[in-house]
Amino acid sequence: MKVAIVGYGNLGKGTEKAVANAPDMELVGVFTRRGPDSVKTATGVPVYPLKDIYEMKDKIDVLVLCGGSATDLPQQTPDLAKYFNVVDSFDTHAKIPEHFENADRASKEGNKVSVISVGWDPGLFSLNRILGEAVLPSGSTYTFWGKGVSQGHSDAIRRIDGVKDARQYTVPVEDAVQRVRNGENPTLSVREKHTRECFVVAEENADLEYIEKTIKEMPNYFKDYNTTVHFITEEELKKDHSGIPHGGTVIRSGETGGNKHLIEFSLNLDSNPEFTSSVLVAYARAAYRMCQKRDFGCKTIFDIPPILLHPQSPEELRKNLL
Amino acid sequence: MKVAIVGYGNLGKGTEKAVANAPDMELVGVFTRRGPDSVKTATGVPVYPLKDIYEMKDKIDVLVLCGGSATDLPQQTPDLAKYFNVVDSFDTHAKIPEHFENADRASKEGNKVSVISVGWDPGLFSLNRILGEAVLPSGSTYTFWGKGVSQGHSDAIRRIDGVKDARQYTVPVEDAVQRVRNGENPTLSVREKHTRECFVVAEENADLEYIEKTIKEMPNYFKDYNTTVHFITEEELKKDHSGIPHGGTVIRSGETGGNKHLIEFSLNLDSNPEFTSSVLVAYARAAYRMCQKRDFGCKTIFDIPPILLHPQSPEELRKNLL
Repeated sequence: MKVAIVGYGNLGKGTEKAVANAPDMELVGVFTRRGPDSVKTATGVPVYPLKDIYEMKDKIDVLVLCGGSATDLPQQTPDLAKYFNVVDSFDTHAKIPEHFENADRASKEGNKVSVISVGWDPGLFSLNRILGEAVLPSGSTYTFWGKGVSQGHSDAIRRIDGVKDARQYTVPVEDAVQRVRNGENPTLSVREKHTRECFVVAEENADLEYIEKTIKEMPNYFKDYNTTVHFITEEELKKDHSGIPHGGTVIRSGETGGNKHLIEFSLNLDSNPEFTSSVLVAYARAAYRMCQKRDFGCKTIFDIPPILLHPQSPEELRKNLL
Repeated sequence: MKVAIVGYGNLGKGTEKAVANAPDMELVGVFTRRGPDSVKTATGVPVYPLKDIYEMKDKIDVLVLCGGSATDLPQQTPDLAKYFNVVDSFDTHAKIPEHFENADRASKEGNKVSVISVGWDPGLFSLNRILGEAVLPSGSTYTFWGKGVSQGHSDAIRRIDGVKDARQYTVPVEDAVQRVRNGENPTLSVREKHTRECFVVAEENADLEYIEKTIKEMPNYFKDYNTTVHFITEEELKKDHSGIPHGGTVIRSGETGGNKHLIEFSLNLDSNPEFTSSVLVAYARAAYRMCQKRDFGCKTIFDIPPILLHPQSPEELRKNLL
């Protein structure tokens, strides 16, 4: 299976590692909008300008799209899905139906398969939400995120006057998680589910009071949460907060005829982008296999039989893992 | 979707409840090898002799087979799979490949779909094993069962001279689970993973020392485990041990380029048979839908797209759960 990567940020780098670890895959290249000479890949795989990708159509079985959901993927996925099997991690929840339609139309035009919105949320968490509801129709589903770094919230802090750098952690409220685990099926407000912890490096002579107030009152991002702000030095940020860990938990709390049941799926990830890449690569395998079966169009994690994700044969998998 | 149940033990009764809870399903009958007059269903649904089932072929969309794996299912599943869509919870791991072949042949002969070995293990746990390996190829998978009642082990104790009744709990060793969660990837012996706790009601004047020794030295069942035996009264057994709880955890501990990741899936079930039935009913929905798409043959949880398990439309599911 010949794989190529579009975009060489954290996700692209993670994909490069994941493909190297897959016994049935070969990485043929990285495509970038930057000058290819300015990009140096970890494995030495060649870098090409993105605009030349169509010339390599016949040398690539599946493309892993590693761009961002804000501007890259809404354009790239439909554009490329007409000529390639593609997989992306599009995560703007509200725009998934539209993205699905666009990718579906393109894939069907080209007799290809696109897999959108895989990773862990959307992705493995979504899978557990659908399983939980299907198996226990009477019940409630809870998703807790963290403890982990939110890139979007960190960026929002960095845009404040006087902030040099920042790292924001989303933290699930332990008491809320415990109440769900106890089968209480509580109704939880936004504030009751997560807190936000911010580590901020201020510019010299910056107005710390202003920064803290601006963070805590920022609508959408922080206003509805209990937020704590810690001012630290650049060295402390580098030493203690340079990783990109994340994770979280999906809990389905349901009942059958008076008996209570709990289904819980948790992730604890040292590197959010490397894990997301690993999911992308497993679903890239499925995209290629679905195309071979001529099951064209756009798919999500809901549409894909798990057996297509694993390199082993169906016989081996039934024998060893069932 | 018209559903019928074969076998009216704990699993059949759980299936009856689960079908009643499904908005898109109707229970048309229970089939039994016992005299139908001797069986009284909870919902009042009619009971028929199993031998007459073929006459109702056109009135049933899918059969949920609720017999045991030792003798019922190896016979019933292939027999019925030729005429009906069927789903079973066959759980004799070593014989799954043979059971699959037999069911596959029958289903393909009849242009039907059979789904075998669903429940939670095999079943949802298997799904998490394949996902864990596919996403994190470098790593180890651990399955812990319990704390929960093992029917097979309880039965084995009941067969000992002087035992009136017994309940056996399989208990995961907390320290082992913790080591796995810490990312230590330990090699764990059978004894290090689970302990066995037995609650025994002895006959009057029975030789307690003999009973305890016989349990602890029983090969396969207890010999390789640290086993504790508690003698209790019949009243205590009834009061404290009448439920059939179970559960457990599948953990994939893996790494990507030096970063560690943990995927954990846990179940905590008040009623093992009712939960298993709930899984069977969700996969019964998928069996019927796959038959409508003419995707005939035998399937396992590995082969089934999750979207087929849920009564809602693909559009709604993408919008609400992805």
